[in-house]
Amino acid sequence: MVQCNPPDLDRIFGALTDPTRRALLARLAEHDSLSIGDLARPLPMSLPAVIKHLDVLEGAGLIARHKTGRTVACRLVAAPMEDAMGWLRRYTRFWEESLDRLAAVVERAP
Amino acid sequence: MVQCNPPDLDRIFGALTDPTRRALLARLAEHDSLSIGDLARPLPMSLPAVIKHLDVLEGAGLIARHKTGRTVACRLVAAPMEDAMGWLRRYTRFWEESLDRLAAVVERAP
Repeated sequence: MVQCNPPDLDRIFGALTDPTRRALLARLAEHDSLSIGDLARPLPMSLPAVIKHLDVLEGAGLIARHKTGRTVACRLVAAPMEDAMGWLRRYTRFWEESLDRLAAVVERAP
Repeated sequence: MVQCNPPDLDRIFGALTDPTRRALLARLAEHDSLSIGDLARPLPMSLPAVIKHLDVLEGAGLIARHKTGRTVACRLVAAPMEDAMGWLRRYTRFWEESLDRLAAVVERAP
């Protein structure tokens, strides 16, 4: 039987709360993959601190790590973001309604 | 001068990490507004614990509280969710590409 686990939104949203982790994802989006050293270089923190952030991202399924010789490289895995977006999408009508109300106010203004 | 602050994604994603807070938002989406008592009633936790969750949601701009007499009611404010979705939307092409690759594999299958 194929098991379909519900997305782990706690971990996915949790991973996205931190600006360093969002910046790491943004950099990975620009490359097929990057080594941990390359990811850490521009960041104003220690390598172990960067690795902790990568652990959180990997725990949420947002990155995958692979080893080539002595180098560990990371790549973006975007699928969990789609799960997060799926949750948010249920609320789309609420902000669209707000915009419609705002547009109506603007149109009525003299 | 109109100041346009960047969305506080740390707080928005942070507020969404917790299943109780996501459940509170889902309930508020079904009503114009709900009293704190009504929100707390079905939850297996103390009123102060629910109020703490509501504080986090309010801090992220996801709910607004208003007092009528002795009753405090809450309503959903969906705009920050749009900011979260805006951030996620940058990555749409990555999961669409994954789906395209999957579709290509399925089409090639005998």
